[in-house]
Amino acid sequence: MPQETTAAATTTRVPATELQDFIARTLAAVGMPEADARVVGRIMAEADARGADAHGIFRLPPYVKRIRAGGMNMRPDIRVVKERAGSALLDGDNGIGHLIMKKAADLAVQKARNTGVAWVGARMSNHAGPAGIYARMPLEHGMVGIYMAVGSANHMPPWGGTEMLLSTNPIAIAVPGHTRPPIVLDMATTNAAYGKVKAKAQRGEMMPEGWMVGRDGKPLLDPKRSSEGFLLPIGGAKGYGLAMMFGLLAGTLNGAAFGKDVVDFNQDYASTTNTGHTVIALDVEAFMPLREFEEQVDDIWAQMKSSPMLPGWDEIRLPGEQSHRTYEERMANGVPIHAELRAALDALAQSVNVAPLGA
Amino acid sequence: MPQETTAAATTTRVPATELQDFIARTLAAVGMPEADARVVGRIMAEADARGADAHGIFRLPPYVKRIRAGGMNMRPDIRVVKERAGSALLDGDNGIGHLIMKKAADLAVQKARNTGVAWVGARMSNHAGPAGIYARMPLEHGMVGIYMAVGSANHMPPWGGTEMLLSTNPIAIAVPGHTRPPIVLDMATTNAAYGKVKAKAQRGEMMPEGWMVGRDGKPLLDPKRSSEGFLLPIGGAKGYGLAMMFGLLAGTLNGAAFGKDVVDFNQDYASTTNTGHTVIALDVEAFMPLREFEEQVDDIWAQMKSSPMLPGWDEIRLPGEQSHRTYEERMANGVPIHAELRAALDALAQSVNVAPLGA
Repeated sequence: MPQETTAAATTTRVPATELQDFIARTLAAVGMPEADARVVGRIMAEADARGADAHGIFRLPPYVKRIRAGGMNMRPDIRVVKERAGSALLDGDNGIGHLIMKKAADLAVQKARNTGVAWVGARMSNHAGPAGIYARMPLEHGMVGIYMAVGSANHMPPWGGTEMLLSTNPIAIAVPGHTRPPIVLDMATTNAAYGKVKAKAQRGEMMPEGWMVGRDGKPLLDPKRSSEGFLLPIGGAKGYGLAMMFGLLAGTLNGAAFGKDVVDFNQDYASTTNTGHTVIALDVEAFMPLREFEEQVDDIWAQMKSSPMLPGWDEIRLPGEQSHRTYEERMANGVPIHAELRAALDALAQSVNVAPLGA
Repeated sequence: MPQETTAAATTTRVPATELQDFIARTLAAVGMPEADARVVGRIMAEADARGADAHGIFRLPPYVKRIRAGGMNMRPDIRVVKERAGSALLDGDNGIGHLIMKKAADLAVQKARNTGVAWVGARMSNHAGPAGIYARMPLEHGMVGIYMAVGSANHMPPWGGTEMLLSTNPIAIAVPGHTRPPIVLDMATTNAAYGKVKAKAQRGEMMPEGWMVGRDGKPLLDPKRSSEGFLLPIGGAKGYGLAMMFGLLAGTLNGAAFGKDVVDFNQDYASTTNTGHTVIALDVEAFMPLREFEEQVDDIWAQMKSSPMLPGWDEIRLPGEQSHRTYEERMANGVPIHAELRAALDALAQSVNVAPLGA
């Protein structure tokens, strides 16, 4: 296997299919039905391939920890509890989020084919990986996808407050292009996602101003002291407002946790998280011929690319463009796995008695 | 009429109903059918009552200027050009935006009653005032409302660029409460809306850092030099991404202007703007009993309110709370109209030969 030496660690490249297989056999070994484990393996490996390193195989050890603690149901009865022609509410029966949101996206696509738009929410779910994965699902059906979620731990107070009542509640929106890649926004409503803070701490680096403040309202720059402060929303009160509305729509409206009820999935592995998410599918053909729309999206892409640049810039990027490049590169060359992560995965393999990654 | 003396000007209070009547008779005098003029008058006066001072009667003189320049159709055939059970695309026939988006919201509510959710887009529209007005329309039907629009002038380049290809493309989301006011987010995707820059210039004040940068990428603080620079998106690349996605959904998908095609409505009064907007209505009862949802929204309100505060803060606000208070106060005491605005409205009244405001 090819090896790269980085400043921090030895990194090996592993084909995405091997990540997928390893995830599937590990989850099967701790009780997940094999067909389900394969679906989750494919989605998690796609997260890695698309560059969402903090949302792919990196999450497998904590998922297994939760499963062993009894915090997640391995044989959930994922069912529709409310339904209209263009809407549905799923109860995930405390299953893993990936399975529930795959089902939600499939149902939204099926409904939107008739009604033009469909809104499918889920409660009693769990962490599902990166938002963009689910927003992308309607793309191959000629549809726009939108995804919102309540984050799995509160790291932000209301604007002006100090009590952690809000998460980084993300949104993703995916729009298809024709010869260009789709335009895909995938963002937390905070300036930095919490995973980025953890990464800074691991590397022993300071955070830039604007990521976090302490309970005194002053900038907090040392990521090792992150528990003493909280994340800042984008645009101040505006990002707080976005996190609030996504929480109400993906959490409260679905009968899922929001506010004080959110369980910190990094601290508590046994309690039911009752995570809420929502997927919207919008059929382009309900508005204009798909080909015509895709060509116009390509034109917008070209307009943005051809703008003159600010001093010091060498490229204007469209939302999702970097992730698309990472995907092409990683599908060709494999996903980089740091030695530290590999060690954790090897230990996991041994503990559940499956063949290690890439074996 | 009660008078207040402020630092800048003499302000009189005018009942919202008088604003409404004045707007209606002025628009009727320049050719709008009376029933339509009354609808627009009511919406514009509501904008003023809710504190959206830059989106209410303040806009009447430029609207009349556009009408006289032949830039807006006084007898539009506003029609559904594409339709499914949960979606519709309206062609506004270059009518005033308020009429078109009122029709879009009514249609979305009617459809969502059956399908759970409805998405209604419009093209060939014009400026429609504040986003929040249309997001609020579904509230009285027990529904969540969402509104997105392409702004009526480009003031922002793509992230890293210098060509003005994007507007402040706003979003509004409204969620009903029970004993509390609804929670209503209404925001531009830039740190400051362009109207705020103009207000700073009028008052001879400097802008805070973060509102605008020059073409050199350095902070631009003098609002009188605003034409030399551009607005900054919230959260940097994230706000750019939001403005992009709202532009694609409310503009491109509706066959409306986005990117280079956007007409600057402050500079060009004759060209058809082909403004695009979208309203989404989501029926709460498709997910849970309305009363139960509203009570849970009240509970979220109370949770946020009871958070301890950062030093120097004396209140935590929910999105839309300030606007709600302003509304209550102005419905009781009238809308403050500055002497400068009154003079402009008096001149307008004379030029179209109608009775002046409050007469």
